[in-house]
Amino acid sequence: MAIPRSVEWKEDSIKILNQQLIPNSVEFLTLETIEDVWDAIKTLKVRGAPAIGIAAAFGLALAGSKFEGEDLQEFHTHIREKSLYLASSRPTAVNLTWALHRLQNKIEHAASVNEAKTNLVHEAILISVEDENICYNIGQHALSLFNKNDSVMTICNAGSIATAYYGTALAPFHLAAEVDFPIHVFACETRPLLQGARLTTWELLQSGVNVTLITDSMAAHTMKKKKVDAVIVGADRISANGDTANKIGTYGLAILAKQHGIPFYVAAPLSTFDISLKNGDEIPIEERKEEEILKVGHEWVAPKNTSVYNPAFDVTPAELISGIITEQGIIHGTEFDKIPDLFTTKSL
Amino acid sequence: MAIPRSVEWKEDSIKILNQQLIPNSVEFLTLETIEDVWDAIKTLKVRGAPAIGIAAAFGLALAGSKFEGEDLQEFHTHIREKSLYLASSRPTAVNLTWALHRLQNKIEHAASVNEAKTNLVHEAILISVEDENICYNIGQHALSLFNKNDSVMTICNAGSIATAYYGTALAPFHLAAEVDFPIHVFACETRPLLQGARLTTWELLQSGVNVTLITDSMAAHTMKKKKVDAVIVGADRISANGDTANKIGTYGLAILAKQHGIPFYVAAPLSTFDISLKNGDEIPIEERKEEEILKVGHEWVAPKNTSVYNPAFDVTPAELISGIITEQGIIHGTEFDKIPDLFTTKSL
Repeated sequence: MAIPRSVEWKEDSIKILNQQLIPNSVEFLTLETIEDVWDAIKTLKVRGAPAIGIAAAFGLALAGSKFEGEDLQEFHTHIREKSLYLASSRPTAVNLTWALHRLQNKIEHAASVNEAKTNLVHEAILISVEDENICYNIGQHALSLFNKNDSVMTICNAGSIATAYYGTALAPFHLAAEVDFPIHVFACETRPLLQGARLTTWELLQSGVNVTLITDSMAAHTMKKKKVDAVIVGADRISANGDTANKIGTYGLAILAKQHGIPFYVAAPLSTFDISLKNGDEIPIEERKEEEILKVGHEWVAPKNTSVYNPAFDVTPAELISGIITEQGIIHGTEFDKIPDLFTTKSL
Repeated sequence: MAIPRSVEWKEDSIKILNQQLIPNSVEFLTLETIEDVWDAIKTLKVRGAPAIGIAAAFGLALAGSKFEGEDLQEFHTHIREKSLYLASSRPTAVNLTWALHRLQNKIEHAASVNEAKTNLVHEAILISVEDENICYNIGQHALSLFNKNDSVMTICNAGSIATAYYGTALAPFHLAAEVDFPIHVFACETRPLLQGARLTTWELLQSGVNVTLITDSMAAHTMKKKKVDAVIVGADRISANGDTANKIGTYGLAILAKQHGIPFYVAAPLSTFDISLKNGDEIPIEERKEEEILKVGHEWVAPKNTSVYNPAFDVTPAELISGIITEQGIIHGTEFDKIPDLFTTKSL
């Protein structure tokens, strides 16, 4: 039993879990060139915002270490080019460009190519270690909310394989399993892309967490008929008032939780907050292509000419959220008016 | 543009729509023997409680018409045997045995084999015609609740192909399309078996209804962001207090509708009421096999050893239901205490 890790630095290569094949086969790939890394991100073999950022950082460090020559100016040009190239793999992924910029800033004042190469590798590893620490702390804070033998519902995969390690919403379950603290998880399958069915059940089974899979349509009946003590979800973006954008289906779960008197928690690092946005209405919602709903795998499940509405995210209003669990502690629902202050004082 | 009909009497055969192949191909089958009918019911080529009852009635009439000889006693034995055989195709389908008994009762006093044969055919056709009339009346009553350009959400397939014609929850949409009264439908795909995606979108496209497909997880966001004026669903069983068992996911939709101030209607014939049940807690909920969730079509979408909870139905409590639309009129939410009276006076 071990928590799976999806991206790992191996000095002259990067080892990644091919998430495209989960759960039907568990395959680790060795990425030896920056083209390999670009392809892995592009084709969703690596997914999850933090994991993509880490893979890109490792990719740029790899590109640096393979540079031949001593000309620092040429090295900078090389890294800039490779950075633009990597960023093009998934243009809208914020963590990707954030990680690449962080690496580039780190070599601005390097005195030699060798120093710059070392700085890139160190910074890339630091990004991974920091993310792992953040997830660990989120997990510990979240675990403090649960009791032994609680049943907790989740959606999508805010898991270890989407981050450096542990995950966000799934972190407390992994940490509980490590210390034999029994928690049972209801995983919603998460249509249309089935990240709950494909990834979360697999990931939790790896670390020995007791998980039961349901379709999204079964959440209400499960809350009524089974013991569900809490709901915990990840977040893609949180506005200044606590409104939270996350995988489509999250908003519905929050309403159902309220109706059944079940607390609803969001687990996310402070970097997920975008306090430039006053509320959730300002969060743009991506609409994705019709085929994600019209087909499952290779099979058409509706007439090809059917109209489809396919929003990828929804926004859960702050008043439905019992608390937001960050690496620095829990922001309770009654304290959401203090969220903007966190980003001046950086303490809870 | 035409509303599809799934079961049709053709004198020496029965024509059915093969619902197993919808939407990927539209195939009509000619059933010429009672074995064909048994197989069509068993393998879900015919589905929907009323449609199954009608197919079985036609099947028994067909078996009668093919009887050779003039011995009335032998004819009765023949019909009893064939009736038991047909009933074994789906042992739990209430409409199936109800229709078969109704036909058998009709030949009790027949004076000749010929008269009995005619009685069987007439009664089977009558069952189909009665169901069509019921559905038509449900549709007209339901349509009176909607305005031009309304958007209405539904789940599963309470449609024409599940009944003699028109359907229950889908009847108002077909009737509206016939008179160019524009209504837009949001169809929830209805996991795990995807009846909304596979059947409802196809059926509504046939009669020219404007339909948009969403996953079940998108219902809440759709209610918030799009114009949704009502929700209408079918029913499998309704208890004396108005609590309604229907396809899994219905209860969640009712909660979401309440949260968004959207009226929630149940469309069902009076035969769906079981007033021997005081409330929804007494309605048994079938749990189905794990593979329905672990696989979509032939593809595994979760680890094979994942635990699954797969209830086929849920119960929507009466207080979440704005009205129940029957063939005799609409029972409004405020009048549910009068439901038991309907079954003594038989009028609304």
